[in-house]
Amino acid sequence: MERPRHQGMAKNTCMRWRLPLVCLLWEGAMIVLFGVFVRFGAEADAHWEEEKREMNLTSDIENDFYFRYPSFQDVHVMIFVGFGFLMTFLKRYGFGAVGFNFLLAAFGIQWALLMQGWFHSFKNGKILIGVENLINADFCVGSVCIAFGAILGKTSPIQLLVMTLFQVTLFSVNEYILLNLLHVKDAGGSMTIHTFGAYFGLTVTRILYRPNLEQSKEKQGSVYHSDLFAMIGTLYLWMYWPSFNSAISDHGDAQHRSAINTYCSLAACVLTTMAFSSMLQKKGKLDMVHIQNATLAGGVAVGTSAEMMLTPYGSLIVGSISGIVSTVGYVYFTPFLESRLHIQDTCGIHNLHAMPGLIGGIVGAITAAAATEDVYGKEGFIKAFDFTGAYQARTPSIQGGFQAAGIVVSLLMAFAGGAIVGGILKLPIWGDAAAENCFEDEVYWEVPEDEESDAYHMHNPDKPASP
Amino acid sequence: MERPRHQGMAKNTCMRWRLPLVCLLWEGAMIVLFGVFVRFGAEADAHWEEEKREMNLTSDIENDFYFRYPSFQDVHVMIFVGFGFLMTFLKRYGFGAVGFNFLLAAFGIQWALLMQGWFHSFKNGKILIGVENLINADFCVGSVCIAFGAILGKTSPIQLLVMTLFQVTLFSVNEYILLNLLHVKDAGGSMTIHTFGAYFGLTVTRILYRPNLEQSKEKQGSVYHSDLFAMIGTLYLWMYWPSFNSAISDHGDAQHRSAINTYCSLAACVLTTMAFSSMLQKKGKLDMVHIQNATLAGGVAVGTSAEMMLTPYGSLIVGSISGIVSTVGYVYFTPFLESRLHIQDTCGIHNLHAMPGLIGGIVGAITAAAATEDVYGKEGFIKAFDFTGAYQARTPSIQGGFQAAGIVVSLLMAFAGGAIVGGILKLPIWGDAAAENCFEDEVYWEVPEDEESDAYHMHNPDKPASP
Amino acid sequence: MERPRHQGMAKNTCMRWRLPLVCLLWEGAMIVLFGVFVRFGAEADAHWEEEKREMNLTSDIENDFYFRYPSFQDVHVMIFVGFGFLMTFLKRYGFGAVGFNFLLAAFGIQWALLMQGWFHSFKNGKILIGVENLINADFCVGSVCIAFGAILGKTSPIQLLVMTLFQVTLFSVNEYILLNLLHVKDAGGSMTIHTFGAYFGLTVTRILYRPNLEQSKEKQGSVYHSDLFAMIGTLYLWMYWPSFNSAISDHGDAQHRSAINTYCSLAACVLTTMAFSSMLQKKGKLDMVHIQNATLAGGVAVGTSAEMMLTPYGSLIVGSISGIVSTVGYVYFTPFLESRLHIQDTCGIHNLHAMPGLIGGIVGAITAAAATEDVYGKEGFIKAFDFTGAYQARTPSIQGGFQAAGIVVSLLMAFAGGAIVGGILKLPIWGDAAAENCFEDEVYWEVPEDEESDAYHMHNPDKPASP
Repeated sequence: MERPRHQGMAKNTCMRWRLPLVCLLWEGAMIVLFGVFVRFGAEADAHWEEEKREMNLTSDIENDFYFRYPSFQDVHVMIFVGFGFLMTFLKRYGFGAVGFNFLLAAFGIQWALLMQGWFHSFKNGKILIGVENLINADFCVGSVCIAFGAILGKTSPIQLLVMTLFQVTLFSVNEYILLNLLHVKDAGGSMTIHTFGAYFGLTVTRILYRPNLEQSKEKQGSVYHSDLFAMIGTLYLWMYWPSFNSAISDHGDAQHRSAINTYCSLAACVLTTMAFSSMLQKKGKLDMVHIQNATLAGGVAVGTSAEMMLTPYGSLIVGSISGIVSTVGYVYFTPFLESRLHIQDTCGIHNLHAMPGLIGGIVGAITAAAATEDVYGKEGFIKAFDFTGAYQARTPSIQGGFQAAGIVVSLLMAFAGGAIVGGILKLPIWGDAAAENCFEDEVYWEVPEDEESDAYHMHNPDKPASP
Repeated sequence: MERPRHQGMAKNTCMRWRLPLVCLLWEGAMIVLFGVFVRFGAEADAHWEEEKREMNLTSDIENDFYFRYPSFQDVHVMIFVGFGFLMTFLKRYGFGAVGFNFLLAAFGIQWALLMQGWFHSFKNGKILIGVENLINADFCVGSVCIAFGAILGKTSPIQLLVMTLFQVTLFSVNEYILLNLLHVKDAGGSMTIHTFGAYFGLTVTRILYRPNLEQSKEKQGSVYHSDLFAMIGTLYLWMYWPSFNSAISDHGDAQHRSAINTYCSLAACVLTTMAFSSMLQKKGKLDMVHIQNATLAGGVAVGTSAEMMLTPYGSLIVGSISGIVSTVGYVYFTPFLESRLHIQDTCGIHNLHAMPGLIGGIVGAITAAAATEDVYGKEGFIKAFDFTGAYQARTPSIQGGFQAAGIVVSLLMAFAGGAIVGGILKLPIWGDAAAENCFEDEVYWEVPEDEESDAYHMHNPDKPASP
Repeated sequence: MERPRHQGMAKNTCMRWRLPLVCLLWEGAMIVLFGVFVRFGAEADAHWEEEKREMNLTSDIENDFYFRYPSFQDVHVMIFVGFGFLMTFLKRYGFGAVGFNFLLAAFGIQWALLMQGWFHSFKNGKILIGVENLINADFCVGSVCIAFGAILGKTSPIQLLVMTLFQVTLFSVNEYILLNLLHVKDAGGSMTIHTFGAYFGLTVTRILYRPNLEQSKEKQGSVYHSDLFAMIGTLYLWMYWPSFNSAISDHGDAQHRSAINTYCSLAACVLTTMAFSSMLQKKGKLDMVHIQNATLAGGVAVGTSAEMMLTPYGSLIVGSISGIVSTVGYVYFTPFLESRLHIQDTCGIHNLHAMPGLIGGIVGAITAAAATEDVYGKEGFIKAFDFTGAYQARTPSIQGGFQAAGIVVSLLMAFAGGAIVGGILKLPIWGDAAAENCFEDEVYWEVPEDEESDAYHMHNPDKPASP
């Protein structure tokens, strides 16, 4: 009998002291920082009765909770079930996919509440939070889940926590530059979440390049039921994406419009994905990788423009194109990125988030530049782009230019940040596994070892093939 | 070693050019038609601020989005996860169940937005859409998902797209006749969605009768985990059915009442289903097929009457009866339909949708006929049945008669439409598989072929049993 | 070849007449009782138009439906998918977990509508129901689902229905004592749902102690995919817990605040759970049992205090502690309870519900005792604790005392009730399985027996290992 691989190795993947230390230290820091800074916003505070009178509100239904909580819960499901299960497609990395996504997101939302709070909700020395902050924290963590997709199966949980800490920080800075300094619109986060998150993750995985990764090649595939688990993630992302893109839009028509545009874009995207998936395989068979991923590109690609007057047919066009680009990406670009550029992108986030995110940023810039008072109405025009105060003089074409600048800034932040964080994660202290043990839950998880699961262990050299 | 079955056959199931062609052609048509016809409704348009003033609304919360969006998302989950996963019970057709359902629904909602839009939301040459249109499009597609259940595993994706095109069209016509010409109430669609969808699907599968289907008999069963995947579908349908039946009811009490009636009916249905499932098996064991399906009959059977004053105990009675009828149907009617009437009904939609749909239509007619001003209140009576304008003179008993007529019309449309569409689908150009390859994902999907999934391939003659 | 075990036994597990009899008898009783007692509340009744005028409401959006329906649906998902799938972790008891949970919950909500209705919604001889009653019924059933976790795999469906009948009754009495007599606040049910439900279930399982349970030891574990199914349950419980704790809080700030506190507590809980799960295993590997369960303790532990001014950092502290306590419980207390106290707790509800429930009660008492008009505002203080009418004179410290008394009452009710109900369930008439057939679906379910699932049957002595 062969010796267990991951014991005879040089690499020490034991998490026993390192992971608890990091988790407890960071949770302790969160408690202290929350204690110093975080308080309830006016709509969640027990003084709300008085607040209501002051704001001249006649009903509790005017509390922002009722405008946004259903969307918040949909976004919450996307982050934890959507991203978590989407990544369970690997035959032996389901625990890591759903479990590490859970860990990093649970940490990330706390840190995001602080970081985004300092930038956007800071009053008299306190961060005042409400349901919109919870949504934004989930959004911010979404960009980390995206980056996780690129390095799935190749990193230790500690590396993921370190990456989350830095990425949330950089995300918040980038978001502040875009939304506050450039005064850019990006309700569904094509630029701030997808473009930034994806290129950040791709840069990190490039730095962490593993030349011997083909040693775990046979674990990089799926099995029949793991593909079905992944479809749970896909469908929840797909169904709730209209909530994602509309969750923090202005009350009323903007939320309504964002949901409709996203619904249309996603529907179109499914058809073009199926078409190209079949067309690009020599026997015309559909590939689950495309169905699981490229069908979602339509949601990414209207992330910036969904709350604008993109119109339903505009959404169909954007969705159709993004489905094609994404599917073609899986077939041609991913192998190219790996063999030529040494970018090992486990989930293909380049196809699902990077390219559609860029499309989304560009479509947003064009839609903004093309806006007219005729289409939006006088009041609607000002409200949609928030052309008030210092921005009163902005014209649509100037806004379009700033939108385009937002794409560039997001890319630069992603490349620079990814390079630095990738360098940090390359340090040999974080307990990542050797190449031949990548994509394998047994490294960090207690995996059921009973006889009935033998089917899954056939090629595991840790134990004899049969009792 | 035997030769792969589906290569040595006469039937050409290759989708490489046909499927992409159909998908792209239809998506192209959608873009053109949306461009010509579809615009945002007043509540989703950027002119909403002005609209609000004209309509004398004081708050954005009066936007229909906030009345209906949570219900819309629940309905959306039912269509894509509910129907999709409910059909994953087959051991080797999970990809097809969830993937083809995804494809046909994504196409169907676009076409439904147009068809229903022309009938119901057409103003000055444009279809003006809002969240209620999205719900109705999902509803319409629901009837296609139902019909898909009858032919599951026996058709090519192109056949499904062709069927969707025609069924959505016929659905919209039937719906227009019922709601506008007969002035029938059917908020949860017992008649328009379930009766029509199920008898349409049953007629189609009758026309497509395959005499040699027992050749794939061993694939028509489930495996342990495929039954658990199916339960995900069941539970989401069951939990969200109150949202389904209340989604397009009038604001206020009607939505509230529909949800309560449906909740009660579904709860009762579970108990009678369990009772009869155990009673009808000789060792008293429960059958997952019944639990997965018949427990949902209660939702179907109050689809017409839920928004009426059916009362909670009335709902319990309807739910109890429909659970019994549906379970008995699985045990006795399904084999009868197959052996005597040559109706091969893969998912048993006759038991889950057809019979409970008829019950729903009848209960609706009776509940309408029994309505009194005493029970509804003077205003409530007029509002509940919309007895205004041309319908001012309608009495409850006349309404009951029209409701009954709605059932008959739906049946006739289903039989006639199903026969025509079945005939079209019988043409030998659509790439459906031979009988011995039905219920098998490998025909249209790339299925993971690695060694670890051998357990699932034991009887697949394409490859030797073990490496 | 060995004989099938469960046929050669003394125990008769055949449900054929007993289960149908119980189900139909009870459903019949529900119909009669609903017919006599249950009617629509004012907001779901067709007289709502008149009611609206009387209550001076200007918009349908003021209907309680729109304040609570989204939360209701989240709670509904937690009960049926959350609890149901959480318990599918066992390798051969997935049907029983999700199916029996479905059965008992569907019965329980009907009986709870009556029991809670008599106590809380009884007017002029009728129980008037609305969406809040549906939520409360789901809550009540939640406590039965918790108790089910302790006896999972060891009881017949009839025993579960009998337990549900009694437990719902006792729950309602206990809830009445706490909420109405002691005037205790417990919106998320730390005391009424978790403490009561868990100690009730633990007492029942103690009475039903099976000395030979190690005969089915090998079935008490999980397999790889059953652990993933369980994670679906975990994540839906985790994500929707903010809705659970806020579902019946006062409109406005209280609902908003409950959601935020719960969100924070749960996020912190994940980190401490991961930390201790790794720390307490000698190789530092994470254990799915902890991730599936202990990550939820944070939601339980703020169940009483979430609607109070616990503050976000307070929530982080409570969540952190409860994650630690719960994980330590799984590692040290569960084996101790089983070996020393003969408490066989299949799902470890002592760690997930009992201890965190007690923490929740205590934190609630402290938070109430520490309340000041300064923190809550004058009006907010009175509204938060409902210090009106007979309770006008209550001070925070007195309220704290009553809160503490609520914990004691819940414990006493649980122990006494559990002992009585356990005694009833011990009668040899309910058809429970012998020890060696526990945790095995084949006893009560038709399980797919085809060749492809052989992997799951390897050690099933009913049939030869291979055909």
